[in-house]
Amino acid sequence: MSLEIWSNCRAATMQPDAAVPYGLIEDAAIAVEGDRIAWVGAAAELPAAMRQRAGRHHDAGGALITPGLIDCHTHLVYGGDRAAEFELRLNGASYEDIARAGGGIASTVKATRAASEEELLAQSQPRLQALLAEGVTTVEIKSGYGLALEHERKCLRVARSLGALNPVEVRTTFLGAHALPPEFAGRADDYIAEVLRMLPALHGDGLVDAVDAFCERIAFSTAQTARVFEAAAALGLPVKLHAEQLSDSGGAALAARHGALSCDHLEWLGDEGAAAMARAGSVAVLLPGAFYFLRETRLPPVALLRQNKVPVAISTDCNPGSSPCTSLLLMLNMACTLFRLTPQEALAGVTSVAAQALGLPDRGVLAAGMRADFVAWDVQRPAQLAYAIGANPRRQTVFKGQPT
Amino acid sequence: MSLEIWSNCRAATMQPDAAVPYGLIEDAAIAVEGDRIAWVGAAAELPAAMRQRAGRHHDAGGALITPGLIDCHTHLVYGGDRAAEFELRLNGASYEDIARAGGGIASTVKATRAASEEELLAQSQPRLQALLAEGVTTVEIKSGYGLALEHERKCLRVARSLGALNPVEVRTTFLGAHALPPEFAGRADDYIAEVLRMLPALHGDGLVDAVDAFCERIAFSTAQTARVFEAAAALGLPVKLHAEQLSDSGGAALAARHGALSCDHLEWLGDEGAAAMARAGSVAVLLPGAFYFLRETRLPPVALLRQNKVPVAISTDCNPGSSPCTSLLLMLNMACTLFRLTPQEALAGVTSVAAQALGLPDRGVLAAGMRADFVAWDVQRPAQLAYAIGANPRRQTVFKGQPT
Ligand SMILES: [Zn+2]
Ligand SMILES: [Zn+2]
Repeated sequence: MSLEIWSNCRAATMQPDAAVPYGLIEDAAIAVEGDRIAWVGAAAELPAAMRQRAGRHHDAGGALITPGLIDCHTHLVYGGDRAAEFELRLNGASYEDIARAGGGIASTVKATRAASEEELLAQSQPRLQALLAEGVTTVEIKSGYGLALEHERKCLRVARSLGALNPVEVRTTFLGAHALPPEFAGRADDYIAEVLRMLPALHGDGLVDAVDAFCERIAFSTAQTARVFEAAAALGLPVKLHAEQLSDSGGAALAARHGALSCDHLEWLGDEGAAAMARAGSVAVLLPGAFYFLRETRLPPVALLRQNKVPVAISTDCNPGSSPCTSLLLMLNMACTLFRLTPQEALAGVTSVAAQALGLPDRGVLAAGMRADFVAWDVQRPAQLAYAIGANPRRQTVFKGQPT
Repeated sequence: MSLEIWSNCRAATMQPDAAVPYGLIEDAAIAVEGDRIAWVGAAAELPAAMRQRAGRHHDAGGALITPGLIDCHTHLVYGGDRAAEFELRLNGASYEDIARAGGGIASTVKATRAASEEELLAQSQPRLQALLAEGVTTVEIKSGYGLALEHERKCLRVARSLGALNPVEVRTTFLGAHALPPEFAGRADDYIAEVLRMLPALHGDGLVDAVDAFCERIAFSTAQTARVFEAAAALGLPVKLHAEQLSDSGGAALAARHGALSCDHLEWLGDEGAAAMARAGSVAVLLPGAFYFLRETRLPPVALLRQNKVPVAISTDCNPGSSPCTSLLLMLNMACTLFRLTPQEALAGVTSVAAQALGLPDRGVLAAGMRADFVAWDVQRPAQLAYAIGANPRRQTVFKGQPT
């Protein structure tokens, strides 16, 4: 395998134990061999043998290099959109009016079911493209708008196709327990039984990397969620949970007991849930786009998370109903502006901690042995990525060692 | 002049008196002659003579066509940025700490003065490019970080150069009365006298299309603002005003008495100010990016503006301190999400009404005789432009009749 060296750059390594903010190396070199990073450090310390062996030298032109961005919580495969509903509401329609007009999540389920696999792929591709344009190299995609075996399968297959067609790794999450489909109205336990039938079938098809559920008064109970988690455990699949978004229903503590990779949303997380997450090593995934779009006023308990040393990731939550968002850079700004995270916390939230939220220890940090996924940015300092609103200073993405 | 026809599109004409929302024409044709629109209407009604005379037919591929977007309030020519200050504050620094570290507007004035004309142009160009990438065809750029004749001249010259180098029309606004420069500390009236000396000089250089001031407790009084407005009137220049952002100081009423094109910000606008604006025909320019970034809680009085029939424009307010924003599409979303404008009001706010805020009656609407500035978007319905966060569905911009 040929060795390639990137130099004339600053590198924000995002090493969690670094002595300097962002693990920043001012005049850095990065050696890449195949799809892995072989060496990262100060250019002056690059081993001479490595320099001589290098088959190619890339001049990064003074760019700032960060790990490839990781969007660890999206629902980006869906049919239709909810722009008409957005407009109706702003024109004064009530939630009732909108439900009568067939709006809400039911409309997305209907449009997703009606779409062919090809149509879903074509509709989802521009959303993924928008993420890639901002340096995303790993993205999680959840099912959850099919809510029936064939449609959940279709969505997860589209997610896998997106990964095959684009320079990005897609991690799939089965979110059958997202909402109650209309044909199960009033029979939530029966639907959970159906979810438990779907899971092994989809897992057998190689379509499931993790399992998620929506635990909330308006969705599924902790008892129902526990049944889903037990089924995941039986298949050896990691779990995560939409928890404490609208109320403190004990979802985070339940998820932590099941060793969840992450608990997501968490506006209403309390002391017990935070302590349980800390003990379990679960990541808190905060979703400022949904907070913003839904005009929430209850902030996630950032101080409590810091106090309990719960690592914090940031994601777009890309979905048609509560966060029609395809800008992870904007989420950095919203995490800082709305949630008062520091720019360093926010950047860790889309790199090193986001990798942890997906159970991927081989990325999110620039270090020897890690996947060679990184981005060169036309900025001087990492904080500029979080400060700017609507700018995209990406110069180049390298995915698995290859410039994209 | 050759006639060109665009068809296979929907056209959101934004005709203010249209019978249908957005003045939407479902199967539209647009005929362009030179830099003007010669005809717009239903494709089936395109005059046969025009069709025969056309030298070129463009297939818009089913796109939605809107007028070119107009960003009517920016400060996008400045030196440096304030990312370090943003980061310091999020790491717990107080405003005092930041002032001691040389932060705030003073740091931007210092960096702007230190930059050469070429450096300022190079730093401002990416910000303008970001706006153009989203379909902006007219942009207003204010001075106000030079605060001394040579530096204000430099900034306005950069603004003119940006217009000459890019497919966009730049309208310049002299905002000498933006802040008190350090050398005039404690001598605001003396500085206003200096502003009154700068204005005719810069106007003589052909650098001033309009005059603005920042009327606020922390900036200039209504009496000082009135002196600036009188000087503008003496030169026949239209005025606009940063008013009622932090308090109701009567700026809007003052500006209206001077026939202002617009009053901008307006979170604290009261009944009298709104009535005065209505009588004067001044546009209300709302700036949701600054509201968001400063975490304001006082919303601009949208109901009051509607009630008084004051037209509402929307803009990025692109500036390093309170709105480091270069996405006018995101401002559509924020205008709807934060200020509860309808998508139609928001789109009018960056087209027909934004044109009015700049005193440009020849654009912002698709109609015969108007400038042929328009954008083809990969969306079905206009509301999708305001609904999506971080997407850029622009397919093509036409500026003065020419695809860019
Ligand atoms: Zn979600
Ligand atoms: Zn301004």
